[in-house]
Amino acid sequence: MTWTGRESSTGIAERALIEAIAAELASPRAATRIVQGSGDDAAVVRGRPLCVTSVDAMVEGVHFRLQQGWATPAEVGHRALAGALSDLAAMGAEPGEAYFVLGLPESFGERRALELVRAADALALQAGAAILGGDVVGAPVLMVSVTAVGWAEQIDTLVTRAGARPGDRIGVTGRLGAPAVALAVMEGHVPRTAAGEQALACARAPMPRLAEGRALAGAGVHAMIDLSDGLATDAGHIGRASGVQLHVELATLPLHPGVHETAQALGVPAWELAGTGGEDYELCFCAPADATEKVERALADCGGERVSWVGEVRAGPPGVLLSDERGEAVRIEGYEHLR
Amino acid sequence: MTWTGRESSTGIAERALIEAIAAELASPRAATRIVQGSGDDAAVVRGRPLCVTSVDAMVEGVHFRLQQGWATPAEVGHRALAGALSDLAAMGAEPGEAYFVLGLPESFGERRALELVRAADALALQAGAAILGGDVVGAPVLMVSVTAVGWAEQIDTLVTRAGARPGDRIGVTGRLGAPAVALAVMEGHVPRTAAGEQALACARAPMPRLAEGRALAGAGVHAMIDLSDGLATDAGHIGRASGVQLHVELATLPLHPGVHETAQALGVPAWELAGTGGEDYELCFCAPADATEKVERALADCGGERVSWVGEVRAGPPGVLLSDERGEAVRIEGYEHLR
Repeated sequence: MTWTGRESSTGIAERALIEAIAAELASPRAATRIVQGSGDDAAVVRGRPLCVTSVDAMVEGVHFRLQQGWATPAEVGHRALAGALSDLAAMGAEPGEAYFVLGLPESFGERRALELVRAADALALQAGAAILGGDVVGAPVLMVSVTAVGWAEQIDTLVTRAGARPGDRIGVTGRLGAPAVALAVMEGHVPRTAAGEQALACARAPMPRLAEGRALAGAGVHAMIDLSDGLATDAGHIGRASGVQLHVELATLPLHPGVHETAQALGVPAWELAGTGGEDYELCFCAPADATEKVERALADCGGERVSWVGEVRAGPPGVLLSDERGEAVRIEGYEHLR
Repeated sequence: MTWTGRESSTGIAERALIEAIAAELASPRAATRIVQGSGDDAAVVRGRPLCVTSVDAMVEGVHFRLQQGWATPAEVGHRALAGALSDLAAMGAEPGEAYFVLGLPESFGERRALELVRAADALALQAGAAILGGDVVGAPVLMVSVTAVGWAEQIDTLVTRAGARPGDRIGVTGRLGAPAVALAVMEGHVPRTAAGEQALACARAPMPRLAEGRALAGAGVHAMIDLSDGLATDAGHIGRASGVQLHVELATLPLHPGVHETAQALGVPAWELAGTGGEDYELCFCAPADATEKVERALADCGGERVSWVGEVRAGPPGVLLSDERGEAVRIEGYEHLR
């Protein structure tokens, strides 16, 4: 079967669970390119000229905790798919199919497994992707591995990390730092304000910027990446892949509500939370200086997140250079990893 | 990156390991359809008309054990990829790309991780597939998840489980039961004979029948599946998907060397080991009765495994009906699962 799984390995009835999953999924029914969905050795879909593939895995105790309200099964399902789709967004690809591996501990149970898959299915529907199959296996802790497949018609509609050029402006979609605020709220470092609750909600169900990614690719940006490890780290990836230096002015970073108050409570600069927090899943890109209006219009036209311009690309040692509100170079966590 | 992984989650330096993996892999260098390999948010390959995808996961303690010589890291890498490629073989697809998720316990270490990947890479090269990327994460036990992507030019070159018709002959490639013999040898139930050692070697490095799968599809077989759960179970999948009854004569099953002696030592019929053992990764298929010579010639022409004819398809309650050497219906483990 496309959804596979042995009788014996989870303690819960895998075949029954697989049938329940396959019966519940709505996203495959909305997809038009499926030739063979669930129920055979492999899934078959009609291909397009370019196939774009990303893999993302999350492990309980490493990437998330289920105890005491840290993460629900639904959040895990959503975030696992969001992470893989975000990589497709960063390429400018159209989302296609997703395949899940669920490693389930015996105690997890069928009800929670279905909650997890339902949340992923809802995101898939929203994103225009279809969850087509996967594997269910026993495991000592919950693990979710997602392969997301996207498509493009021609190579110049895709964007890699490697095309940034000196003179490009550096843009970021949306606002940064919600996961850092959410962590501080969860750990009790800051009180639960309305902004904190909003940050928690965003961090628990990040939206991959798929429409924005395609709009930015169409507007001719030179390089793009999604912010999974934090801007300081991810901008460095563009810099090294492109052989240029990204100068980021930290004072211009777009802050998520709650970042300012959280930073004050923690005694760190706001840009430290926004620039190194990770898991923002916004897009960072480099656009020709004369294309900034075109970029802004393209994002507005797709109904997407707004852009903030946070720096520029220069010739220099490949990587990232961060400067604070006084224009002085700073080193922050994440930045260190680049060396 | 196509190969992703955080600094923090495994205890071993993930980025360094990922770079070591990407540098070692030979299979991507042999592939011709790669547009963007390792080093960006996602991999990009040139697509073909039909995209065939299978996912397979293996978890330490559930699917294999690393202690006391049960399985080496190299065997785990080989078998994880073989399982996913075997599904492509059963569809008649041409192998394309593979993506790995490695969940690594802290104690596993970089050397063994590279052994695992190298063995998978060697199989990929042999099979004409390319390992293009994946994810490396920390995990409490070793977990390997593989997504294998294959391709086909047109739908009538692919075979599902659903096309078997009354009157078809049932064929099986190769010989069955090596994993059952290997298990008996490992558990000390039978002495380590030459046949036992051969079975061990086969069970540790099963070869997906990719050339055979394409040859059988080209010869016009009506339905096909790979034998991962044992013939009794997998023939039942064809029967139910096709709405027919597969009559399998157990006395005609092709036995791997060592099956006969092992069955005697265990006090069970030889066909019980060959028909229910699982993980044979041979192909079971249903061919029109007038195409048996064409099938045999096609397998010979591709230099593949020989076919054994083990029964025929009849109208009747969908599923499988097994009969012993006296022609009497039998129920064996695996068969029970079908009900």
